[in-house]
Amino acid sequence: MMTQKEQWEKAKKVLPGGVNSSTRLNKAIGTPFYVTHGKGSRVTGIDGKELIDMSCAHGAGLLGNAHPAIEEALRRAIEIGYVNSFETVYHEELAAYVVSTVACADKVRFCSSGSEATMHLIRACRGYTGKDKIIRVEGHFHGYHEMIYIGGQPPQSEFPRNRKEPYVESAGIPAQFAELIIPIPFNDKVALEEAIKIHADETALLILEPINFNCAGIYADTDYLQLVRKLTAENNIVLFFDEIQSAYKKSFGAAQNELGVIPDVTTIGKSIGGGLPLSAFCGKKEVMDCFMPEGKVQHSGTFNAHLIPVLTGLAFMNEASKPYFYPKLYETGDRLYTGMNRIIKENDLDMVIPYYGARFNILMGRKTPARNYEETFCHDNKAFLAILKKCFDKGVYFHDYGGAPSHHGYSIQHTMEDISFVLNTLQEVLSQKY
Amino acid sequence: MMTQKEQWEKAKKVLPGGVNSSTRLNKAIGTPFYVTHGKGSRVTGIDGKELIDMSCAHGAGLLGNAHPAIEEALRRAIEIGYVNSFETVYHEELAAYVVSTVACADKVRFCSSGSEATMHLIRACRGYTGKDKIIRVEGHFHGYHEMIYIGGQPPQSEFPRNRKEPYVESAGIPAQFAELIIPIPFNDKVALEEAIKIHADETALLILEPINFNCAGIYADTDYLQLVRKLTAENNIVLFFDEIQSAYKKSFGAAQNELGVIPDVTTIGKSIGGGLPLSAFCGKKEVMDCFMPEGKVQHSGTFNAHLIPVLTGLAFMNEASKPYFYPKLYETGDRLYTGMNRIIKENDLDMVIPYYGARFNILMGRKTPARNYEETFCHDNKAFLAILKKCFDKGVYFHDYGGAPSHHGYSIQHTMEDISFVLNTLQEVLSQKY
Repeated sequence: MMTQKEQWEKAKKVLPGGVNSSTRLNKAIGTPFYVTHGKGSRVTGIDGKELIDMSCAHGAGLLGNAHPAIEEALRRAIEIGYVNSFETVYHEELAAYVVSTVACADKVRFCSSGSEATMHLIRACRGYTGKDKIIRVEGHFHGYHEMIYIGGQPPQSEFPRNRKEPYVESAGIPAQFAELIIPIPFNDKVALEEAIKIHADETALLILEPINFNCAGIYADTDYLQLVRKLTAENNIVLFFDEIQSAYKKSFGAAQNELGVIPDVTTIGKSIGGGLPLSAFCGKKEVMDCFMPEGKVQHSGTFNAHLIPVLTGLAFMNEASKPYFYPKLYETGDRLYTGMNRIIKENDLDMVIPYYGARFNILMGRKTPARNYEETFCHDNKAFLAILKKCFDKGVYFHDYGGAPSHHGYSIQHTMEDISFVLNTLQEVLSQKY
Repeated sequence: MMTQKEQWEKAKKVLPGGVNSSTRLNKAIGTPFYVTHGKGSRVTGIDGKELIDMSCAHGAGLLGNAHPAIEEALRRAIEIGYVNSFETVYHEELAAYVVSTVACADKVRFCSSGSEATMHLIRACRGYTGKDKIIRVEGHFHGYHEMIYIGGQPPQSEFPRNRKEPYVESAGIPAQFAELIIPIPFNDKVALEEAIKIHADETALLILEPINFNCAGIYADTDYLQLVRKLTAENNIVLFFDEIQSAYKKSFGAAQNELGVIPDVTTIGKSIGGGLPLSAFCGKKEVMDCFMPEGKVQHSGTFNAHLIPVLTGLAFMNEASKPYFYPKLYETGDRLYTGMNRIIKENDLDMVIPYYGARFNILMGRKTPARNYEETFCHDNKAFLAILKKCFDKGVYFHDYGGAPSHHGYSIQHTMEDISFVLNTLQEVLSQKY
């Protein structure tokens, strides 16, 4: 049996950083966490250590590991012969599920990653409006690519420069791309009005997460969202909700369905593949029909909507549409969130746990949720990493995100016993000095 | 049982154009080809029509449908619980396979689509050099994204304007991005020298397909490649071979291994996932270590190197490394290419079949291979679509690519009987007026 460190050293010889995704180096534990297998709510490391998984593949694992419905879909794929690059009736069935459950969706397309989904849909918004610029909200995240990995989460030292010259979040992204980005603070109606006043004629889309899972779980204010809807509609700006994280997390549909504000287009992802690589982008007919062969915007690719993720996606939809599914998730969440809030109160911690369905954030340094990115600077990344390390040592896996106040979650397979174990662990860890 | 047309009408209601990839509308047959299942070399349509598949998922299906080794990998994934977003020993094993078989590869990273692979690697080239521009070759294809879907295959009417103001190949791509692209004609040493002379100080990378599968199967001249290598090395320009199509098609490795010219970085894809969504980007240590967490270039994502494609990728590598594998592919290819050339000769056709391993192109209007994109304008797309339609009606599926002289291929499961059937079909079709 190898240690995590030994496997890391071996992997680093052939993979930069020993991983296929930069954030898989877990900064809390000091190495990536290499695993041998997973079952239900648990993952087992190559060193034999078993943990309760409170990452759930960053939200993709809403069904947990080794779910019977997904196993059945994989067996079905074997029977069919997993033909690739052809469409089947299953593609249409899965598309119909999205259209019937996401309020803005007249039509939908599928691809593998969430980054691909936002990239293709941004292209359609530009093709539709004939304009190029993007108004985006600070703290929100929409994928790792040149279109939008700019001005989202600049370091504290970059304020307020960020709003004039948006911060480019990776080396290798040319400055030209930043000229197309207009960052605004979340939930700030004055800044919104000003940005639209100045940039309406050149702005193709306004993109945001209705619940800002990627930074402290900040909800959009209802009147803010209503103003966003009004001003974008008046100015031929496509309103783009990135619901890659929020869709199907709390209800069998998207957050927009219950927010009362319907965008023009939406990306969804993470859990819709049942744990396999599947994302989608959807929206009203006028924008979606910009895609070839109906329109002039390209979206093509050998691996788009591969049959296997489409079959596991259908299995996910079938499971999530069962009457027991969301009530069971709520029951688990009630226990978890009530317990966490009790621990915070009993220990008089400056900490808040915003949540939405099966996904939650942990923000330190405050007793109430933040309302925008700047208000999260009170969070202490280093102290948070120390907390996550202690949880890890005691058998609970939270992903680290460099210690940022990002999202965690549970799956349909997490039991009340799992949640009790998580709560006991947090009580032990948080009642000590960190 | 539904007809193709009925399913298309149904699918168009929820999917733009009824498909998840614009090129899945087959222009030869007038609808997409919706399938129910695949086995070996065959695919079966929803209307019960069985065809010999000479697309093989645009090259991803080198193992054919329902291959036993892939079925075994899928069963293994079920056992492991298909944990997502964690790394395993299998990731390192698969990486080691790439490093040991692709000449330029010190290190590698995996993602889902080929478009993602070129996008991330272009970012690393820019991060590495601190420069932004891209010299690219006309006719070559490197993915459907804003970084490079510019100036590749402009319409004939765009010449020679294309070289001054590169042609943007999709609506929704801002004009600014075209300023970063410098297109040059293939196999033209003077144009190459000139482009580098003018743009060396601002050029991050020179990208090309060593065999231009995406347009008429044009090979790079050896002395041209040698000059490309020399000039890029002298000018701090990263030499980028896009081998998404050529790797593992003729030998257990990349085309660069036998061309005698080793680039700095390379993308590979299509067949390496054994028919599942997997692509890779690799190269020399200095460039690859620009990726976080080693360097400052971002490459991250929930679905990168998902365990299931990694397991099927390992199954592919195990199969392709068996001593029988490439000899069997050559035997099949010998029969196919000898037969096709005989048909061309006997019917005195203006047609040429450049090939590389299990993949080939069909170019009309010439008796010898083209040497650059402009030389392929003799190809008659409309006549070619008519040929593909006749083949389809007789039971052979070639993908259409709008009638362009793009690539086709066979799999390890195609039998001599399959090839005889394909040849008889082509003889019948090509001996008539088209």
